[in-house]
Amino acid sequence: MKTKFVYVGIRVTDMAKSIDFYTKVLGMKMVGKSRIEATKGDVVTLAYDEQEFSLELNHYDNDSPFNTRYLVGEGLDHLAFGVKDLDQAVADAKRAGYPVVQQLKTASSRWLYVQDPDGIWIELFDRVDFWGSQ
Amino acid sequence: MKTKFVYVGIRVTDMAKSIDFYTKVLGMKMVGKSRIEATKGDVVTLAYDEQEFSLELNHYDNDSPFNTRYLVGEGLDHLAFGVKDLDQAVADAKRAGYPVVQQLKTASSRWLYVQDPDGIWIELFDRVDFWGSQ
Repeated sequence: MKTKFVYVGIRVTDMAKSIDFYTKVLGMKMVGKSRIEATKGDVVTLAYDEQEFSLELNHYDNDSPFNTRYLVGEGLDHLAFGVKDLDQAVADAKRAGYPVVQQLKTASSRWLYVQDPDGIWIELFDRVDFWGSQ
Repeated sequence: MKTKFVYVGIRVTDMAKSIDFYTKVLGMKMVGKSRIEATKGDVVTLAYDEQEFSLELNHYDNDSPFNTRYLVGEGLDHLAFGVKDLDQAVADAKRAGYPVVQQLKTASSRWLYVQDPDGIWIELFDRVDFWGSQ
């Protein structure tokens, strides 16, 4: 089967709070918003201008058949975001109320995790090469 | 914070079976493989040649502190893949042992779900515009 991996959809319990986290803390942009009556759900699409792959936030009404009991679970291990300055990113996230919950390193790299408003693990890691000379 | 959304990591319980599903059924390619002693985990990176965003499969040893009880959970709502021919994709997936578990439509579009080996929901939808004149 020929496919194209287009986006990852996470489920959120408080749409406004999650939009705040992914846009104000992580710096993504809201590029789409829709209502799906078939699922009684609201969908918000987040991305960056220059990038096609997106993160979809899914929220279901109380009477939606998809509004099952919410447990983050282990299916989603983590969402990974490269940053320009890891120490600065950690300070920014902490100030916004999202402290580091786990830090890991090897001889050559270091990466760490904060949790989104629902407890989903968000990896932050240095990727200086992304940003060029900006 | 300036970030770049780089990949989504899912946790799998049987690495070989999951690699088979994402490469043989969905047509992704294995572009990286590594062992992380700090987590007692194995990591496989899947993507396409032409695309940067990747899917990471994470498997943890039995004695890894990250090998917690596995429940897919609701944090990860679904992973979405555009396909050229939805009916053909459905037939291919079914033949491989992954039948459609949910189908949804609106006046203008149709999308459906199969489940990966761990029960993670995989959305398949027509995106003819991706493939150009190929």
